[in-house]
Amino acid sequence: MDKSFEKDRIVAFINVFTVDPVNQQRLVDLLARATDGSVNRARGFMSATLHRSIDGTKVTMYAQWRSVEDYEAMRQDPGPLPFLEEALTIATFEPRMYEIVRTFSPVGT
Amino acid sequence: MDKSFEKDRIVAFINVFTVDPVNQQRLVDLLARATDGSVNRARGFMSATLHRSIDGTKVTMYAQWRSVEDYEAMRQDPGPLPFLEEALTIATFEPRMYEIVRTFSPVGT
Repeated sequence: MDKSFEKDRIVAFINVFTVDPVNQQRLVDLLARATDGSVNRARGFMSATLHRSIDGTKVTMYAQWRSVEDYEAMRQDPGPLPFLEEALTIATFEPRMYEIVRTFSPVGT
Repeated sequence: MDKSFEKDRIVAFINVFTVDPVNQQRLVDLLARATDGSVNRARGFMSATLHRSIDGTKVTMYAQWRSVEDYEAMRQDPGPLPFLEEALTIATFEPRMYEIVRTFSPVGT
């Protein structure tokens, strides 16, 4: 991990799942069930948005957490695991943790 | 494109750039300059957030647009091109267009 990264700042997770288009809706349902009722009740959870790609081949969860520690504490909760394990039978998964550099809003419109 | 996709709904672009960590900050600067002053003045631009991965290997721009048409109209603007062209000399790029399935907010905390 980058040494400049501070543990008490907001982190964003952009988790990209690759899937056969015939399974995209099933994957969406599994990730929604993994999030609803456990992840969204966890301490430090700020927001998450679930996306399906127009080409059918990706499902991406974008989430913000108050800190890395809060995210890691949630990972100890077994509640979402059955849904995630089933998701990984139909998809591959590239998780990635980010810091937010900058946010842009509309200007002059 | 998925036939069920409606042209007048919000679209999200999650564009993942892969980069050598020594060039990550330069890539962040180029993408910020590509966005600032042209993309963020375009009709239909709603928001964008620029992220750098903690492991140093990715830079990801998350953006929401009011419609595909608005996004495509912005793509005709030559303003951002020099920055994007320079970015592609140091990074590879996987763009992807999504629709938003669902947004999760904190519950019961």
